[in-house]
Amino acid sequence: MVLLSSSILAADFANLLDDILNAERAGVDMLHIDIMDGHFVPNLSFGIPVIESIVGKSALPFDVHLMVDNPDEYINDLVRLGVKNITVHAESCIHLDRMINRIKESGVRASIALNPSTPLTVLDYVVELCDMVLVMTVNPGFGGQKLIPYTLDKVADLRALRENKGLNFLIQVDGGIDTQNVQKVIEAGADVIVAGTCIFKSDDMARTVELLKGRGAV
Amino acid sequence: MVLLSSSILAADFANLLDDILNAERAGVDMLHIDIMDGHFVPNLSFGIPVIESIVGKSALPFDVHLMVDNPDEYINDLVRLGVKNITVHAESCIHLDRMINRIKESGVRASIALNPSTPLTVLDYVVELCDMVLVMTVNPGFGGQKLIPYTLDKVADLRALRENKGLNFLIQVDGGIDTQNVQKVIEAGADVIVAGTCIFKSDDMARTVELLKGRGAV
Amino acid sequence: MVLLSSSILAADFANLLDDILNAERAGVDMLHIDIMDGHFVPNLSFGIPVIESIVGKSALPFDVHLMVDNPDEYINDLVRLGVKNITVHAESCIHLDRMINRIKESGVRASIALNPSTPLTVLDYVVELCDMVLVMTVNPGFGGQKLIPYTLDKVADLRALRENKGLNFLIQVDGGIDTQNVQKVIEAGADVIVAGTCIFKSDDMARTVELLKGRGAV
Amino acid sequence: MVLLSSSILAADFANLLDDILNAERAGVDMLHIDIMDGHFVPNLSFGIPVIESIVGKSALPFDVHLMVDNPDEYINDLVRLGVKNITVHAESCIHLDRMINRIKESGVRASIALNPSTPLTVLDYVVELCDMVLVMTVNPGFGGQKLIPYTLDKVADLRALRENKGLNFLIQVDGGIDTQNVQKVIEAGADVIVAGTCIFKSDDMARTVELLKGRGAV
Amino acid sequence: MVLLSSSILAADFANLLDDILNAERAGVDMLHIDIMDGHFVPNLSFGIPVIESIVGKSALPFDVHLMVDNPDEYINDLVRLGVKNITVHAESCIHLDRMINRIKESGVRASIALNPSTPLTVLDYVVELCDMVLVMTVNPGFGGQKLIPYTLDKVADLRALRENKGLNFLIQVDGGIDTQNVQKVIEAGADVIVAGTCIFKSDDMARTVELLKGRGAV
Amino acid sequence: MVLLSSSILAADFANLLDDILNAERAGVDMLHIDIMDGHFVPNLSFGIPVIESIVGKSALPFDVHLMVDNPDEYINDLVRLGVKNITVHAESCIHLDRMINRIKESGVRASIALNPSTPLTVLDYVVELCDMVLVMTVNPGFGGQKLIPYTLDKVADLRALRENKGLNFLIQVDGGIDTQNVQKVIEAGADVIVAGTCIFKSDDMARTVELLKGRGAV
Repeated sequence: MVLLSSSILAADFANLLDDILNAERAGVDMLHIDIMDGHFVPNLSFGIPVIESIVGKSALPFDVHLMVDNPDEYINDLVRLGVKNITVHAESCIHLDRMINRIKESGVRASIALNPSTPLTVLDYVVELCDMVLVMTVNPGFGGQKLIPYTLDKVADLRALRENKGLNFLIQVDGGIDTQNVQKVIEAGADVIVAGTCIFKSDDMARTVELLKGRGAV
Repeated sequence: MVLLSSSILAADFANLLDDILNAERAGVDMLHIDIMDGHFVPNLSFGIPVIESIVGKSALPFDVHLMVDNPDEYINDLVRLGVKNITVHAESCIHLDRMINRIKESGVRASIALNPSTPLTVLDYVVELCDMVLVMTVNPGFGGQKLIPYTLDKVADLRALRENKGLNFLIQVDGGIDTQNVQKVIEAGADVIVAGTCIFKSDDMARTVELLKGRGAV
Repeated sequence: MVLLSSSILAADFANLLDDILNAERAGVDMLHIDIMDGHFVPNLSFGIPVIESIVGKSALPFDVHLMVDNPDEYINDLVRLGVKNITVHAESCIHLDRMINRIKESGVRASIALNPSTPLTVLDYVVELCDMVLVMTVNPGFGGQKLIPYTLDKVADLRALRENKGLNFLIQVDGGIDTQNVQKVIEAGADVIVAGTCIFKSDDMARTVELLKGRGAV
Repeated sequence: MVLLSSSILAADFANLLDDILNAERAGVDMLHIDIMDGHFVPNLSFGIPVIESIVGKSALPFDVHLMVDNPDEYINDLVRLGVKNITVHAESCIHLDRMINRIKESGVRASIALNPSTPLTVLDYVVELCDMVLVMTVNPGFGGQKLIPYTLDKVADLRALRENKGLNFLIQVDGGIDTQNVQKVIEAGADVIVAGTCIFKSDDMARTVELLKGRGAV
Repeated sequence: MVLLSSSILAADFANLLDDILNAERAGVDMLHIDIMDGHFVPNLSFGIPVIESIVGKSALPFDVHLMVDNPDEYINDLVRLGVKNITVHAESCIHLDRMINRIKESGVRASIALNPSTPLTVLDYVVELCDMVLVMTVNPGFGGQKLIPYTLDKVADLRALRENKGLNFLIQVDGGIDTQNVQKVIEAGADVIVAGTCIFKSDDMARTVELLKGRGAV
Repeated sequence: MVLLSSSILAADFANLLDDILNAERAGVDMLHIDIMDGHFVPNLSFGIPVIESIVGKSALPFDVHLMVDNPDEYINDLVRLGVKNITVHAESCIHLDRMINRIKESGVRASIALNPSTPLTVLDYVVELCDMVLVMTVNPGFGGQKLIPYTLDKVADLRALRENKGLNFLIQVDGGIDTQNVQKVIEAGADVIVAGTCIFKSDDMARTVELLKGRGAV
């Protein structure tokens, strides 16, 4: 059974805690926290001040996804706030080994995200270090986009790579996942599903969560 | 009597709308919306997705303060969302005249902000275009800082400049203003006071608002 | 038989239209339009104002090659001007899938260019999206350079990759091609040849075009 | 009587030399060559390759205006091509004294350009070095814009500054000048007028030139 | 009598400590430490590793001059190494007040440097915060350049400004100072002279120091 | 037997020449010169002025490793100073073929360095051009770090690649090598070992050099 990380980018920021607690009650496993700076991606979402406001108010672990040019500058604050995972983009880290190790040495799980167009070769020597690899199935920057079909090939390739190397990092998949396509995503190899719009805009959040976690048929 | 723009950077993002409605009931005149990108200033606050969540839910006009390297990329969205004022930093606009005119031509009031160290000479030829000039009394980037005393000299100089030129732009002052020092800020020449921490962390918001607007003694 | 795209970077800008019409009469198939910004490459060639001047004056399709840091900012103008193909460099696009799809959604063919040193792995997941792949056989930035021999291995590798994947994108080759070496370029796998200097500086343009298109022996 | 520098940005790039020779015959005094890189200004015009094509084909001196982030990289080529004046923007040169002196030491006249919003204080210590100061009367980047009225105050202030300091640099004015407003520009203090659209789109270029040079009434 | 800060950029880095101790014995008052990053200025000199090697080996106070794009990243190390003064360039600090205060709060004296072309207006609101203002009399980046005459006018203007405001910051002057021109520099208003080449290349260092400090005639 | 390049980043900059001559006498084969700019890596080491001071004072060849954003700007000076090898990072060169060829055409050996996380695919088409490939076994920026074990797999993979392609470039390994682990590094495939701390901090430099060159057992 897959884990479900609900992206608060799709929540109602007028009443964020309500939405988070609803998601928690509906059975999601983590909060996916999309930090976007309007430089690495063409959208600025929110940063530390918003995360600080919700720390300690939900039992869900915080799964932070840094879509910024300068991820280094966020690590100290995120560690201080007690997040459980920090994901950085391979495309924004020239010193990717240092970044991953810096995160891990501070006691936080460390993951690498890949844009749709990024080849798996960028993982050749660092995949062993990863607690998780995040395969983007849309171009990062916005919620509500459609899943790009070929990116599921990458998920499958990554699963094969993991098997070949005898590793056990998690495979997270993010972008355009809904109750209609989640089965394919899981079959391709996802261990952790990220979903936002289809959870927070759902009429029956608990049912949606169940479907997303692969526990039922549509 | 001065106008009061309450900075939501100091609000509780877990329950943002509640805080905003409380501020509205307490008598503030505008919502000051601090967009920070973690590049122009060393903090990333929040962007369009958060603003979208609160549009149409409060009667207060939105007074947006762009602390970003690339303000151009935010104008279309802010206009679409119906904000009433957009303030850009002189330090981030090489083509400041174009920026101000672009904002005004879209029907939104346009203002220029100045960092504490920035001289008034940067306004020499564009102050006539401004609906408002924002004098920062702290270095932008964080809430809860202390007002820098010499910046009130700049407020006074700006008021003198306005008088000499026979202009009527508003003077907005932002940073570290509280009920203890607001009187000095007003005496220096402020027409619009920005306050965040001292409003949203107040035990008696209505009383605080009254004091900040100069209607009472401390 | 290969197609021939003549690079106007080698034309006489004092009488550009004459040169273009001569090339058209001589039998070239497209106009290769090299936009260079002096940042991505160490040369600034020309941009939209020059292209606007020649639009509608030749029957040749415009094949635009963007050698700029910020290709996003050129797409709208190029689409408006009716160009038939836009090529972007893999090295300048962090969100390469978005860029390619943006071009295609506007009804224009979309291609990816690779510098001589860039490995084919950058195409692993996006080659299916391409109408064409441009293999640079010189370092982009200037006309009149010598073809780098090892880049023809890349052309051959790309042809093999296309065959293995059962795809049918075109392979374009650009840099230092002349009547002496064109046969090798074609044998390596080129479908579209870019040539500039050897066309526009030719004494007998029609004969040169014939040779470049592989229709005759030198 | 003022000098007239005709901006080839407004010429027909399909037949550039024809337009230049027409302007020369019509009596303009210089060719104004606008190099834009799509970074300092939101437009990429043309660079060295286009200038090379016209060198030696007109008797007019080349008056080059660099609207680029990295003017340093253009100086050697421009000197080699024999241009008579190089203008750099104060806003793009942290080491403005070095830049001006580098140009002058290579035997070329050196000028400083100011955006509409830029105060004259940036000239406080370097105005003595200038052969010319260029006051932009539109935001640089495009031809065909309207002259911004307040920029004529800057022209007048600059003339007063020149008189006060007993200097004799030329004052060049560029942006939106036509036969209707040229008289005001000259009265404000212009020694050299830049005009593009109104020359190259004119039905009677000789008459237009005459009017622009202040030799007649409209 | 002026103070003399000897710039080790002109020392022999093969035997740096010898040169430093010679300068100390010859009577210089401080070591001027020029950190250049090859970005803010077109030269990369040396950084923390070189400074670490000489800390504690001379009794002279370290007077550090940061010619870098990112001065923020050097402060912690410099404070740890016990330097007595840190000078930052106005041209590289958008948040100049924050930078100056950060330095002072760590117990180190803080100064602002100005390029030759930079007007004194940039100091309008921050000169009160300065322990020292450094007037560059050459364009920073290299040793061995000639003093630019007009920069002494800026020294004089700064002295007048200090008097008018009743302040008592020191005025440091750096660039091309030698025994021939030092008297003019002192007369213009210098309190602290920086000299490198003329000290370390001198045949009689003690005599040179004496002359530079204004204690004798040439 | 391997060659040994001693990194002067670990030397005593107070008495640099002494340390260099000691290393020379102890039997090292080259001086490894780490130029860091505080941008490509988070440390600024030293640049041309320091290298100039030691040129001609040691018989050892200079093996320069450029850890900078703008390697292009250093080539002329390094060639003039007579260095024997220049290594550039694949991560900092968009036009890697041009860079390598520029170095070789100036008569200097040219090498490519790879960060720990960088895959060998970046060498696919340029490895033939290399005189040497430098495999970083720590993240560049500082001396005294620990060798990252997985990077030795990359050394072995590179050796296999060299054999498969029938090439004969040298394999250089840099980062955290000492007398305890050097045997493993050599067994993995190193031809040239870089060592700094363990040489310059050694009590018996000659013995350490012997051990590092694989001539003895620990």
